[in-house]
Amino acid sequence: MATQGLVIINTGHGKGKTTAAFGQALRAAGQGLKVCIIQFIKGQGKTGEALAFAAAFPGQVELHRAGTGFTWQQDMETVKAAALAGWKLAGEKIVSDAYDLIVLDELTYLIGLGIVSEEEVLGLFRKRPKRLHLVITGRDASPGLIEYADLVTEMRAVKHPFQRGIKAQKGIEF
Amino acid sequence: MATQGLVIINTGHGKGKTTAAFGQALRAAGQGLKVCIIQFIKGQGKTGEALAFAAAFPGQVELHRAGTGFTWQQDMETVKAAALAGWKLAGEKIVSDAYDLIVLDELTYLIGLGIVSEEEVLGLFRKRPKRLHLVITGRDASPGLIEYADLVTEMRAVKHPFQRGIKAQKGIEF
Repeated sequence: MATQGLVIINTGHGKGKTTAAFGQALRAAGQGLKVCIIQFIKGQGKTGEALAFAAAFPGQVELHRAGTGFTWQQDMETVKAAALAGWKLAGEKIVSDAYDLIVLDELTYLIGLGIVSEEEVLGLFRKRPKRLHLVITGRDASPGLIEYADLVTEMRAVKHPFQRGIKAQKGIEF
Repeated sequence: MATQGLVIINTGHGKGKTTAAFGQALRAAGQGLKVCIIQFIKGQGKTGEALAFAAAFPGQVELHRAGTGFTWQQDMETVKAAALAGWKLAGEKIVSDAYDLIVLDELTYLIGLGIVSEEEVLGLFRKRPKRLHLVITGRDASPGLIEYADLVTEMRAVKHPFQRGIKAQKGIEF
């Protein structure tokens, strides 16, 4: 069976966009696929998923964290420079033909913030090897990205624990 | 920091409910939490996530598949009996105090199909150890379940590849 690389987008303002992308990466890794994950905005803390992939799939799942963490304390130039470095890395990985699945976590913000254009993103996607699946996450996926994708899911918040004054917990939120 | 067990529901008719639940399990496992996953409807095939957890977290992540697979070829009594056996197992696991996080994959269908009542489900949840996080997936989560939960996300299908005639692929759909 010839593989047809899919473009999968998890968008919306609810939880689960990144978590589902990592679940997808886990599923792919379990089936022996080569996976690369690039996180554009999230910063340097040791998340459970990063620890898990490093321990469980050395050499099969790569995780790159381009982000500096996105906080109001940082100036925008620092955020942009880190995101651009991540985007350059993504370009190399996508055309390398070394992976079956690449996760571009929070890529939509790069377009939203004007760091890269939608046309630039789609141009890179069109150059990818035919077998390569892409998983893109982030709020407010742009119309051209949605048009290009094969599978788009909107994660919609129905109820969130922060509304109830419960703190983020290890193993759950990070 | 005292842990407060959260009840997390991934519902809606879109993709990513189970994938996000497995991503959550991965995150928790990466942080050293003990995880139990019970799949109520899904059947016996070797999914990527099952293979990955077995290889990566032996003794830390348990995966039980109570389902027979839910197809129109099966009679309803077979489906019900398997789901009920899964529910009994869930009851034992939930009160055992041996886990930090339990995933009840596709539990909502047990209520929807009248196999267990919402009150029975909530009664069991109320008896759980305080630290125990629960992740529940499935379409059409019932109102009482949503009311009880801390975090509820609706996965809404914007676009699905089966609409475009693309077949399910290894590492992506299973």
